[in-house]
Amino acid sequence: MEFQTNTAIEFNRHTNLIEKANANRPHLIYHKVKPTRLVDIIADPSSALGYTAKQADLSLSNLSTYQFGKGDSVTLDLGNHEVGHFSIHINACGSPMDSPLYLHIIVGELPVEIGVNGEPYQGILSQSWLAEEFIHIDKLPTTLTLPRRYACRYIKLEVIDSSPKWKAQFSHPEFISESAADISTVAPLETGDRLLDRIDEVSLKTLHDCMQDVFEDGPKRDRRLWIGDLRLQALANYETFDNTDLVKRCLYLFGGLNTKDGWISTNIFTQNDPVPDDTFFFDYSLFFIDTLADYVEHTKDYATLNDLYPIAKLQMDQALKLVDSHDLVVLDPNRPTFVDWSMDFDRSTCAQAILIYTLRHFIKLTAESDQPVAPYNAILKRLNQSAQTYLFDDKQGFFISGPDKEINLASQIWMVLAHTLTDSENVTLMKNVQKTMFPVTGIATPYFYHHIVEALFITNFKSAGINLIKHYWGKMVQENTDTFWEAFKPEDPAFSPYGDLAINSYCHAWSCTPAYLLRKYIN
Amino acid sequence: MEFQTNTAIEFNRHTNLIEKANANRPHLIYHKVKPTRLVDIIADPSSALGYTAKQADLSLSNLSTYQFGKGDSVTLDLGNHEVGHFSIHINACGSPMDSPLYLHIIVGELPVEIGVNGEPYQGILSQSWLAEEFIHIDKLPTTLTLPRRYACRYIKLEVIDSSPKWKAQFSHPEFISESAADISTVAPLETGDRLLDRIDEVSLKTLHDCMQDVFEDGPKRDRRLWIGDLRLQALANYETFDNTDLVKRCLYLFGGLNTKDGWISTNIFTQNDPVPDDTFFFDYSLFFIDTLADYVEHTKDYATLNDLYPIAKLQMDQALKLVDSHDLVVLDPNRPTFVDWSMDFDRSTCAQAILIYTLRHFIKLTAESDQPVAPYNAILKRLNQSAQTYLFDDKQGFFISGPDKEINLASQIWMVLAHTLTDSENVTLMKNVQKTMFPVTGIATPYFYHHIVEALFITNFKSAGINLIKHYWGKMVQENTDTFWEAFKPEDPAFSPYGDLAINSYCHAWSCTPAYLLRKYIN
Repeated sequence: MEFQTNTAIEFNRHTNLIEKANANRPHLIYHKVKPTRLVDIIADPSSALGYTAKQADLSLSNLSTYQFGKGDSVTLDLGNHEVGHFSIHINACGSPMDSPLYLHIIVGELPVEIGVNGEPYQGILSQSWLAEEFIHIDKLPTTLTLPRRYACRYIKLEVIDSSPKWKAQFSHPEFISESAADISTVAPLETGDRLLDRIDEVSLKTLHDCMQDVFEDGPKRDRRLWIGDLRLQALANYETFDNTDLVKRCLYLFGGLNTKDGWISTNIFTQNDPVPDDTFFFDYSLFFIDTLADYVEHTKDYATLNDLYPIAKLQMDQALKLVDSHDLVVLDPNRPTFVDWSMDFDRSTCAQAILIYTLRHFIKLTAESDQPVAPYNAILKRLNQSAQTYLFDDKQGFFISGPDKEINLASQIWMVLAHTLTDSENVTLMKNVQKTMFPVTGIATPYFYHHIVEALFITNFKSAGINLIKHYWGKMVQENTDTFWEAFKPEDPAFSPYGDLAINSYCHAWSCTPAYLLRKYIN
Repeated sequence: MEFQTNTAIEFNRHTNLIEKANANRPHLIYHKVKPTRLVDIIADPSSALGYTAKQADLSLSNLSTYQFGKGDSVTLDLGNHEVGHFSIHINACGSPMDSPLYLHIIVGELPVEIGVNGEPYQGILSQSWLAEEFIHIDKLPTTLTLPRRYACRYIKLEVIDSSPKWKAQFSHPEFISESAADISTVAPLETGDRLLDRIDEVSLKTLHDCMQDVFEDGPKRDRRLWIGDLRLQALANYETFDNTDLVKRCLYLFGGLNTKDGWISTNIFTQNDPVPDDTFFFDYSLFFIDTLADYVEHTKDYATLNDLYPIAKLQMDQALKLVDSHDLVVLDPNRPTFVDWSMDFDRSTCAQAILIYTLRHFIKLTAESDQPVAPYNAILKRLNQSAQTYLFDDKQGFFISGPDKEINLASQIWMVLAHTLTDSENVTLMKNVQKTMFPVTGIATPYFYHHIVEALFITNFKSAGINLIKHYWGKMVQENTDTFWEAFKPEDPAFSPYGDLAINSYCHAWSCTPAYLLRKYIN
């Protein structure tokens, strides 16, 4: 995806909706986390991302006795991925402190972020996201409490310089973790399969760590409310923490901040007063409808539906304007269709499928809102018909996409999820998909793998779905991760959609869905 | 000088003396300073230190309209050297702020510190003194108020990264300067010689900026109370700001914190509770006596003399233990004799001279304290006699020093200041010094140049003294400095006693003495 800059677009600020969002702000739950050991981050070619954390020769219990001078470092292992604030007590030993302490702190969700620190940054996202601090401390002893929030498991403390006359001593490292969710309230899955159980555990931790003041996409980077993530987080949340207020809050934020011509932004910045981003995806605007529909189905909260239905309707009505005389969606370059981070496939058939998928949800919401459904049913029928007529290649048994009649996996998956074909045709299609397109390649996100697995499950390929979960999320588990990643290609494990492994987010909401998929379809 | 580490040495903590030090803590005076222009720091081979500040193409009055993205920078010029705290307002412009701002701030007393920033640091002092900060700002707009105190004229703001979607805007830069002295209370010198007047102005500013909670050696680096600086600062202060409480405070701090066996430390850390450094110089311990004597002579504050005479006596009695059976000082490797940063000359004759110089002051204090002076007068006579007998080479007309009978400038100067010879012999000696040792080379500090000038003045070589001031301090003035430097060799202007120009202190107390010398001996 290219960066979008649409600074001329004007946004509404529906204060009645934003007030309801604020009324559902969560009380965060704080836990004191102590490091479990000291580690060395070392290059390890056997690790997918190139680095591993190895038990250090130094021992945590003796930490306060070690002396750290120029160039010395120590890495704390919190024992799990955590989101929150770090503090540590620092003393000076030796002669009186005749200079400031200059400290470099690097935090990493995984060893790789610490391992590559210091190499020239190659990524396309802002370098400012790299989680490191350079800190001068003029007076010791002190308790250093870092003011910023970090998402991390590993914290490296490196003394750039003390002076030839004194050294630093560290003690009482402490991390105060924070989340809107309490992980102890969720019964772990007991499938009898240890890998699946671990995948569930990591999924839960991922979701937990992304549940903050809003459902964040990733607590390391972006830290915002993205609708693509929210839709999947909410589904996993209903099956686990069931914090419906937080979903409600997020729906009201999106609803309260659409553009003057109706569209929902892809994401909202919530650090200050909420501000919608000027980035738009065709599919993400529509997913407001699905997220609202899932919420209403789970909560029966018709008051919220009543408030937000007009916003949902705007999404659908705006999207339908992109349908041409053949009842096919025409891709709008100003509102790309995201689907996945991979740029290697044509999106037009996906866009048609997503519109159909969303329209079904919208018709349900319309009926529940006692609004006329007939016009939308008519459109649904036409969109479906066109999809079958123009986009399905009977001879090949696959949906095609774009002027080159490309057959890609994403089109098949979204058409299955959209129920464009009959159930038995869908089964045949998914059989063909597995025969010719598995093992999956060219897909870069857990977000899209989620949709593949769900398509397998709803066409009753349960063991294939489980196998794909084990193959995909299981491969991340093998990398000793505590949370699932924003981007992962099993066939190219060191892939970054941003051109640098240091900037990837290794706890990313849209990857938490095994907790949902396994509970909904399997358990 | 080597780093000394004497962590086993125990110190007294005379609370009655320290309380009197605290009772004389100054009220700092604060001034709001606005930058005067924007500059570019550029390499300039014609500048002694290699860099110069050139008016930038950007204009200060338009600062708030400029946008700074990845790699962009701007340098503020405060118009003069200042000590204090910096703040600036920062806004984001463009799309919503989708990443933190990562800012690099470099401050410099002179252009060189900004010019060489980023080059590998080669100095022997802690790199932690280099005045730069790396700061992540998660929310904009904000007013960034840096918590640390800086000594600087130039402040460079460099955006390491914003993001492709937004840029930073700076406005309302402000520097709150602080000092215990009010420069408006001192009448500028009007000698009729513009260079001398400017030298006086720069001397005054140097002293002013070093007058903080104590007389600091340098507000950029060390920031402590050194007795070598204090002695000269106090002399310049009596002729100008005349803040006698601050001298008193510093004398009580040194007196309150001597070692269990009596010695005064070279310096005291005063950021927290005052802590004496474990570094000792033979000459610096003795200078406690001279500083006290100068103070009593100026103030007639006999109550302070009464409190501190016992401490002064300990310095003398300890030093006299180093005198051998020939009545010559034997150098103590544990208490080197500083004299100057240059390591290229033998110190033994200097040590003898400084002991004599100090003993004269001590005898005066002893008399004023109604203590018996006869024993000390006897010792003075013997020390003087030995100096003449063993250390003065009649044939050559110079003092010799050390086993190699080295003839160095420092020995002559200190022997003149010690009045070991008669006044007319001193005149002859200084004539010979000027004939054979001028222009001065191999001396690295304004501290020692001060003593050369004073030796010229007391032997009535007034125009030679003035010429030396103009040659030495005047050469720094030609480098567009606002304050005088810790170290400067006219024959090697890019000299650093620490191996790196970035770590030199360019506002250093012991260089302020033209304000004293010109007022005392010339005006």
